[in-house]
Amino acid sequence: MIPDILSPGQYDTVYNSLSLVIAAQLFTAVFLLIALPRILPRYRQAITVAIIVCGIAAYHYFRIFDSFREAFVTEAAGGQGDYAQAAGAGFNEGYRYVDWLLTVPLLLVELIAVLALARSVQRGLLVRLVPAAALMILLGYPGEISGDNGIRGLFGLLSTIPFAYILYVLFVQLTKSLNKQPVGVRRILSQLRWLLLLSWGVYPIAYLLPMLNLEGADAWVFKQVGYSIADILAKAVYALIIFRVARIKSFDDDP
Amino acid sequence: MIPDILSPGQYDTVYNSLSLVIAAQLFTAVFLLIALPRILPRYRQAITVAIIVCGIAAYHYFRIFDSFREAFVTEAAGGQGDYAQAAGAGFNEGYRYVDWLLTVPLLLVELIAVLALARSVQRGLLVRLVPAAALMILLGYPGEISGDNGIRGLFGLLSTIPFAYILYVLFVQLTKSLNKQPVGVRRILSQLRWLLLLSWGVYPIAYLLPMLNLEGADAWVFKQVGYSIADILAKAVYALIIFRVARIKSFDDDP
Amino acid sequence: MIPDILSPGQYDTVYNSLSLVIAAQLFTAVFLLIALPRILPRYRQAITVAIIVCGIAAYHYFRIFDSFREAFVTEAAGGQGDYAQAAGAGFNEGYRYVDWLLTVPLLLVELIAVLALARSVQRGLLVRLVPAAALMILLGYPGEISGDNGIRGLFGLLSTIPFAYILYVLFVQLTKSLNKQPVGVRRILSQLRWLLLLSWGVYPIAYLLPMLNLEGADAWVFKQVGYSIADILAKAVYALIIFRVARIKSFDDDP
Amino acid sequence: MIPDILSPGQYDTVYNSLSLVIAAQLFTAVFLLIALPRILPRYRQAITVAIIVCGIAAYHYFRIFDSFREAFVTEAAGGQGDYAQAAGAGFNEGYRYVDWLLTVPLLLVELIAVLALARSVQRGLLVRLVPAAALMILLGYPGEISGDNGIRGLFGLLSTIPFAYILYVLFVQLTKSLNKQPVGVRRILSQLRWLLLLSWGVYPIAYLLPMLNLEGADAWVFKQVGYSIADILAKAVYALIIFRVARIKSFDDDP
Amino acid sequence: MIPDILSPGQYDTVYNSLSLVIAAQLFTAVFLLIALPRILPRYRQAITVAIIVCGIAAYHYFRIFDSFREAFVTEAAGGQGDYAQAAGAGFNEGYRYVDWLLTVPLLLVELIAVLALARSVQRGLLVRLVPAAALMILLGYPGEISGDNGIRGLFGLLSTIPFAYILYVLFVQLTKSLNKQPVGVRRILSQLRWLLLLSWGVYPIAYLLPMLNLEGADAWVFKQVGYSIADILAKAVYALIIFRVARIKSFDDDP
Ligand SMILES: CC1=C(/C=C/C(C)=C/C=C/C(C)=C/C=O)C(C)(C)CCC1
Ligand SMILES: CC1=C(/C=C/C(C)=C/C=C/C(C)=C/C=O)C(C)(C)CCC1
Ligand SMILES: CC1=C(/C=C/C(C)=C/C=C/C(C)=C/C=O)C(C)(C)CCC1
Ligand SMILES: CC1=C(/C=C/C(C)=C/C=C/C(C)=C/C=O)C(C)(C)CCC1
Ligand SMILES: CC1=C(/C=C/C(C)=C/C=C/C(C)=C/C=O)C(C)(C)CCC1
Ligand code: NA
Ligand code: NA
Ligand code: NA
Ligand code: NA
Ligand code: NA
Ligand code: NA
Ligand code: NA
Ligand code: NA
Ligand code: NA
Ligand code: NA
Repeated sequence: MIPDILSPGQYDTVYNSLSLVIAAQLFTAVFLLIALPRILPRYRQAITVAIIVCGIAAYHYFRIFDSFREAFVTEAAGGQGDYAQAAGAGFNEGYRYVDWLLTVPLLLVELIAVLALARSVQRGLLVRLVPAAALMILLGYPGEISGDNGIRGLFGLLSTIPFAYILYVLFVQLTKSLNKQPVGVRRILSQLRWLLLLSWGVYPIAYLLPMLNLEGADAWVFKQVGYSIADILAKAVYALIIFRVARIKSFDDDP
Repeated sequence: MIPDILSPGQYDTVYNSLSLVIAAQLFTAVFLLIALPRILPRYRQAITVAIIVCGIAAYHYFRIFDSFREAFVTEAAGGQGDYAQAAGAGFNEGYRYVDWLLTVPLLLVELIAVLALARSVQRGLLVRLVPAAALMILLGYPGEISGDNGIRGLFGLLSTIPFAYILYVLFVQLTKSLNKQPVGVRRILSQLRWLLLLSWGVYPIAYLLPMLNLEGADAWVFKQVGYSIADILAKAVYALIIFRVARIKSFDDDP
Repeated sequence: MIPDILSPGQYDTVYNSLSLVIAAQLFTAVFLLIALPRILPRYRQAITVAIIVCGIAAYHYFRIFDSFREAFVTEAAGGQGDYAQAAGAGFNEGYRYVDWLLTVPLLLVELIAVLALARSVQRGLLVRLVPAAALMILLGYPGEISGDNGIRGLFGLLSTIPFAYILYVLFVQLTKSLNKQPVGVRRILSQLRWLLLLSWGVYPIAYLLPMLNLEGADAWVFKQVGYSIADILAKAVYALIIFRVARIKSFDDDP
Repeated sequence: MIPDILSPGQYDTVYNSLSLVIAAQLFTAVFLLIALPRILPRYRQAITVAIIVCGIAAYHYFRIFDSFREAFVTEAAGGQGDYAQAAGAGFNEGYRYVDWLLTVPLLLVELIAVLALARSVQRGLLVRLVPAAALMILLGYPGEISGDNGIRGLFGLLSTIPFAYILYVLFVQLTKSLNKQPVGVRRILSQLRWLLLLSWGVYPIAYLLPMLNLEGADAWVFKQVGYSIADILAKAVYALIIFRVARIKSFDDDP
Repeated sequence: MIPDILSPGQYDTVYNSLSLVIAAQLFTAVFLLIALPRILPRYRQAITVAIIVCGIAAYHYFRIFDSFREAFVTEAAGGQGDYAQAAGAGFNEGYRYVDWLLTVPLLLVELIAVLALARSVQRGLLVRLVPAAALMILLGYPGEISGDNGIRGLFGLLSTIPFAYILYVLFVQLTKSLNKQPVGVRRILSQLRWLLLLSWGVYPIAYLLPMLNLEGADAWVFKQVGYSIADILAKAVYALIIFRVARIKSFDDDP
């Protein structure tokens, strides 16, 4: 699925997108770290997890960026010619799953932590959401690295089961707890779930692309840009909204 | 527009300018980080955003600097010969837009935050300025990467609309709010807007250069140096003035 | 024992596992560092040691990862061919012992420190556990780097003596002290010892592999993945459980 | 003026000197950062500027060191042969001016800040010293990069005017203010000015060398070592003395 | 004295030793930095100096490690062949003196600072110990880099004079002051001096090796390992003991 040739424009587009994600994730983490003391201790766990998530993402994007730069090379002066796959260096498509395995469960921890629910309710949600998230990623991986569309389809299907379960818990079960949240944050939290749905939805759709015969350099560039936007929404923007919730609740509790 | 040949002196001039920007942005960020506790909590949001802006700029300039060094090479002993465009590595002119997309809206957030206006006024300004700034950059990008002067002109024109709108908000609408600022800072804030106008103006002018047939190595070197100075003014010097405003206001509020 | 050839899939599996360990150790350290102020001073020593252990592991995995990448190379476009051992660069199997020499004694210090026992009891445990742990690693090293299975067996046996002694101290002698711990943490601490047994057990088993003639690329890849999982359990997960104990005890002491 | 050949001993001498400066500047900055909380808030501005100065110097010396290593190469085994200028990489003599442009004005800010004079006196000194320092460096630059001794002499002369003015302000005008300093620090501050004179004097002298026909490898090595010592005195040692002044004054104000 | 050939086992031994020192110094510094707030302000100066010493050592060992890796190369697959001296890269034996010049005087400052003696006694010790330590290193350097055994002997002798003087001050003059220390730390401080003697003694002995015709790869590897152990004892272990003294004294002063 990795294209053999990228035009200079395609190369620069991917280059710029990947670098944008590094900057967005890294400096969201730095921002939250500096702003942490302005949050009440009770909500710091959520923000700390958000820092970790954006930090891990930045680390992985540094590697993805370097891997991309090594994987496509040209001989043209000033880089103004077609980029071909390099000898001996490849773009590791499965690498994103390493990131997801760590960050996707933590994104749910982040959300639950900022709600500051009763300890038993919180535990109940976490023991269901975290393993489901890990399972979802682990089941998707064999499909991603397989060249066979049948295997891809099968594991994609299996992975969708925990995905559906996570959405069920978030949109059906969590709804009752939302009513116990201060009025000011209820609307934000509900928007946050929609942001989550929208951004997370990108990943299973991207997973389908090879099965839809949507191959070629353009499709691949489009996919990388799509991943980049989804990752910024699902981690950095998501973290900033969680931060805003924590700020409002800090102010409500201790004006 | 990227020149084929740079003399050693031209090469060193760009090299020194780009490195100067790294040092200025990085250590402005470090300075503000160390000085942050001396600011009242109410104004820390503004300084935190300033740290993030200078940090993002330093990150991008590290990449621009490395990209420049790889893009121009010589075979002469001691580097004392002409530098030509390298095979397989180019100077990515569009890369600055990645930086601007993140930092230009934040520069406006920084300014609004230090004013510490009533919450609703602040929101009103942000929902107008931030999207306008993002739009301005996004509209300029297709013109920048296009080789066609017609497309360049068209998108430059489109991008100027949000630019004009931002200046209108800053110079017409914001003026009323300035009167509510303590006397001591009013003058500084007004100077700050002029610094902003002066430094931001550099970018659309540089954008015009290829359309004025101002090509050649000298023009390009001049442009890189101009960008460097404008970036230091628009981010580092700007941040230090914002810091001074925050210090004065901190002292006024809690002498 | 290092395989001559790795398939692209095997190469990526090891690559992804090693990178996963870097991220897990590094960000566990960062998490604990940010969360440290939420722990009572009395338990901070334990968490500080946990930060150091995960930090040292991250440092060593950076080197192991780079060493792996240099040690196996391919000439195939996009890295889609077999990877062979590189000329002039090897994977340094003995390097893990450098890590263990520092971290294994510290893992025991971490455990003892979080118990916050009487000073004399604590000293008594440390003077037995720390030298035993160092001895265990030092005795294993000559066997590991020797090509001779007899020497391997001999030193493996010698190394097992301090290993058995450590387990004896932890599971027999420490048990009395556990009864003095608050009820809420007793169960966690007992689980922690089992986690320790389970994860530490991986290393002597991996040590036996060459003696069982379990050679070949698959066995080696399996061993690297096994080490990676064991290292995450024995350091990062272990540290997070220690952190939870410290949190509960902090809350018990100063609700 | 850059020599064509360095002996191994000359190479190592420059290598060791440059690395010594990195360590000295970097760890002076780290030391001051850790010690900052032990200074009264009123004197923290001075120490913060000192941290920034040493940090900027460390950053530039990292580049100078790498540039030196790339600029001189040998083919001899173990590096035990003559080092010649590399093809395509040069030692950038003008690069130090980038550092000075930022740090020399800040060194004066550092000194004025630790005096903690009345706000108007302080402003009066800064508006004279800072522009003079920037002018001195900017005027020296064209002379430094010119190959012509006439131009070198002319700009050296022009640059000496602001230099003399700075010394006049420091040694004549500032003297009155020194009398308002606590007795214990008066002597240290006076020594500090002599340290400044001594170390700053090295730079115009080094500037003269090419005009005195003091060329050759030995002269160049001597100059690099001289710069290194002067930079350590003018920034790191200077910062530590400023720190001592701040400590004594902190103790006097709040014993 | 640098060997022409290292076996893979010898190469790995030096590699592992040097990396061990990096980890030990770096993480001792990190540990002390995190633990600093648990020390009374009065003893923080000592711990801050200890952090700086271990930090400087870590920095130098990073360079020594990289220099070693570049200086010895092999062409054998998997690195399983003899390593020879590389063309154009050498192992810089004199580089350790750069480290010592900064750290050896600071090790004495660290010791004196933790004693927290009367200001005048402290000053009296420092003005004798610090210059003596710097002189000892400076006098040893010309001998180290000279290939002539006569010069080596002469400067070794000269360097021994300040060395003997330092030991005299520490073991004769300081003894009176030790009696004013709390009983609990007196024994530790006396052990600390023996650790100092033992570890410092390694350096003059290593200095003698070339004069004893103890050449060859084994002797050199032995020397590198010896230096590594001595450096860990003289800086990291030493710092941890100083830390323990500071902890006990902090507790005695403010229980
Ligand atoms: C359902 C499904 C998948 C879901 C992936 C998701 C939901 C990933 C979320 C990633 C996030 C949130 C990353 C953040 O930056 C897979 C594994 C593609 C396999 C196909 C089926
Ligand atoms: C109006 C206009 C532009 C404006 C760019 C601006 C105003 C950029 C500001 C950048 C800053 C402030 C960077 C800080 O370092 C473009 C995009 C060049 C396109 C042409 C029209
Ligand atoms: C008994 C035994 C061994 C034990 C090793 C252990 C117990 C290592 C633990 C490592 C840990 C906990 C690492 C953490 O990441 C050796 C040396 C393999 C040699 C063979 C006998
Ligand atoms: C008078 C004069 C000069 C003065 C330079 C000075 C005074 C530099 C100070 C540098 C410092 C203090 C660096 C700190 O590390 C120049 C520019 C060489 C040009 C010739 C005339
Ligand atoms: C007496 C003597 C020497 C002493 C060196 C010492 C005492 C070095 C101590 C280094 C330390 C403590 C490093 C810490 O990591 C030299 C210079 C070898 C030259 C020969 C005579
Ligand atoms: Na590339
Ligand atoms: Na691959
Ligand atoms: Na170049
Ligand atoms: Na390009
Ligand atoms: Na590889
Ligand atoms: Na090897
Ligand atoms: Na070199
Ligand atoms: Na040059
Ligand atoms: Na090597
Ligand atoms: Na050498």
